[in-house]
Amino acid sequence: MPAASRALNPAERLDWLRLIRTENVGPITFYQLLQRFGSAAVALEALPAFARQGGRPGSIAICSRAEAERELMVLAKAGGHFVAWGEPDYPPALAAVDDAPPLLSVVGDARLLQRRAIAVVGARNASANGRRFARDIAAELGRNGFLVVSGLARGIDAAAHQGALETGTFAVVAGGIDVIYPEENRTLHEAIAAHGVIAGELPVGTEPQARHFPRRNRIISGVSLGVLVVEAALKSGSLITARFALEQGREVFAVPGSPLDPRARGANDLIRGGATLVESVEDVLNALGSQIADPRRLAFARPMTQLLTDGNDTENEMKAARSKVLEGLGPSPVLVDELVRQCQLSPAVVATILLELELAGRLERQSGNRVTLL
Amino acid sequence: MPAASRALNPAERLDWLRLIRTENVGPITFYQLLQRFGSAAVALEALPAFARQGGRPGSIAICSRAEAERELMVLAKAGGHFVAWGEPDYPPALAAVDDAPPLLSVVGDARLLQRRAIAVVGARNASANGRRFARDIAAELGRNGFLVVSGLARGIDAAAHQGALETGTFAVVAGGIDVIYPEENRTLHEAIAAHGVIAGELPVGTEPQARHFPRRNRIISGVSLGVLVVEAALKSGSLITARFALEQGREVFAVPGSPLDPRARGANDLIRGGATLVESVEDVLNALGSQIADPRRLAFARPMTQLLTDGNDTENEMKAARSKVLEGLGPSPVLVDELVRQCQLSPAVVATILLELELAGRLERQSGNRVTLL
Repeated sequence: MPAASRALNPAERLDWLRLIRTENVGPITFYQLLQRFGSAAVALEALPAFARQGGRPGSIAICSRAEAERELMVLAKAGGHFVAWGEPDYPPALAAVDDAPPLLSVVGDARLLQRRAIAVVGARNASANGRRFARDIAAELGRNGFLVVSGLARGIDAAAHQGALETGTFAVVAGGIDVIYPEENRTLHEAIAAHGVIAGELPVGTEPQARHFPRRNRIISGVSLGVLVVEAALKSGSLITARFALEQGREVFAVPGSPLDPRARGANDLIRGGATLVESVEDVLNALGSQIADPRRLAFARPMTQLLTDGNDTENEMKAARSKVLEGLGPSPVLVDELVRQCQLSPAVVATILLELELAGRLERQSGNRVTLL
Repeated sequence: MPAASRALNPAERLDWLRLIRTENVGPITFYQLLQRFGSAAVALEALPAFARQGGRPGSIAICSRAEAERELMVLAKAGGHFVAWGEPDYPPALAAVDDAPPLLSVVGDARLLQRRAIAVVGARNASANGRRFARDIAAELGRNGFLVVSGLARGIDAAAHQGALETGTFAVVAGGIDVIYPEENRTLHEAIAAHGVIAGELPVGTEPQARHFPRRNRIISGVSLGVLVVEAALKSGSLITARFALEQGREVFAVPGSPLDPRARGANDLIRGGATLVESVEDVLNALGSQIADPRRLAFARPMTQLLTDGNDTENEMKAARSKVLEGLGPSPVLVDELVRQCQLSPAVVATILLELELAGRLERQSGNRVTLL
């Protein structure tokens, strides 16, 4: 893992921003590049050659210095700033996540991000009882010292933020941190910016789109010790957040409901699958137990990203390796570890080739360290 | 265990009835006496001496032949008959229970008692939704070949019986099988007597009293492969039934509900404790899995009752033993096995002394093979 337990200097910050805003560079690729090249600046230089190796027809669209400077300026104008992975201000629990955003745009009271956090999420079309429960338990969690995290959606999310507005609440948005969405949450958005904290990984001004929400949900669970699902239909976004929580080793909490209420199906299903049944804040506190003592310990649990080659392999060796890896890939997700075994190549060589393909826009990373060829 | 996998003859049946209706004789004592003396007739002869040994001041009130004959007659007049433990008609799952009633009064279609059964129980002051759920899932269980068992109370019990009236339902009553309770269930009582089956262990004509209900609940769980709790407050009778189910090795199922509804507390608490969350009949079927194939196998799982002495111990030996056992007993429940270890006596001697004390009215048996001195 690239070490950066210090604040970035302005030049580094700009390079980090350029690198993460570059076409086909997601968080995992970002960290791999940083590790391989030592800095974002050097990685930016090396990118075009890498993408060509991966089979990209044209040249890769690298975020220019001017574009990055413009984003920094607009963010500052919106009252926000960047917090980078590894910086002291970065949410400690999120730092332990594989694909944590290298840069978070933050507006509001960034000190709140250091608090131990619980996410409270649920249905947009929540019942009055569900909203009341979310608001009350959020307030209780706040009184017990927790930062209450949610997604600033209608329904349960909004109720959770409202309940914890006084004690501290954290909204993770899918678009830019300055974009009000949905419109009915304008007042709440402004209140959280003033009294709580809002963060997101996409550039200011970005309108949230459907595909952004699942990515956002991994941040909601990632900053939290656990995720509490209050009302959720089957196949809802809240269940995606719960699944991320499991993958990230966080607790999953769910509020039961009548089988006659379709909004209870998702939460009941989570309980059936082993989630902690929650009727009151005590259920959450009991389940967390000793974890409450030190949220920062999570920051050290982050798995190592895969090593890349040091660039000393001969071009002939790499060429043979590339065709082996391409053979092993397809439209169905393949485990990277399985690919390494199958190809009988070193993990570093496989990781390098996958990175080339990804930068060329030909590879997609899935959860659980799996990849598909596009 | 006294073997009786045949129908009793009329004289035996009368002796069984006299023995179980005798003062201080509960089911466990009944089976021990039967085992020790070979028949109820011989046990009845030996009882007065046993009770005196236990320290009873007066003589023990043995049920007379005339009283027993009167009960048989009244039962027949009410359209009922007795089914004895070990007889082919006895509910197979109940036969596997330690303190199964030696005699059940039965009215209605006794063949139903051979079906695999599921209990559906819950709150008297159930919500309309709860009653609807109970009725619907009882009907579904019926369509899947299950006999639906309940306690003929208001609310969930009544709804469960109604839902399964066509496919087969079994009411276990706390008082006499001819006593309508509560009055509002008169029509339902009559419908079950006509189309289903009703059973109880107390004499016809007995008005149910508060202390009878927990004893009744052990029969509800005892005849069933599992108990489904639909709506239940904390500390409710349904939770007692669920506890019996656990002690008897049966499944516990519970229907979740909102934390804002106090009637959901008990069921949610069961789920928290490991009960299977049930939203539909599929949840029940999945959890039962292979058990569904052969309900009769349970009939062979019954633990052996404790052996009594063969009466060849010298009176001096027994006297010393009695004071040791009395020393080990007190108002808090003591495990019988613990008592045996503590006193360094044979299990048969301890069991005999406990039986004497019980017949003298000085000992009470608790669940889990524990006893208290009164």
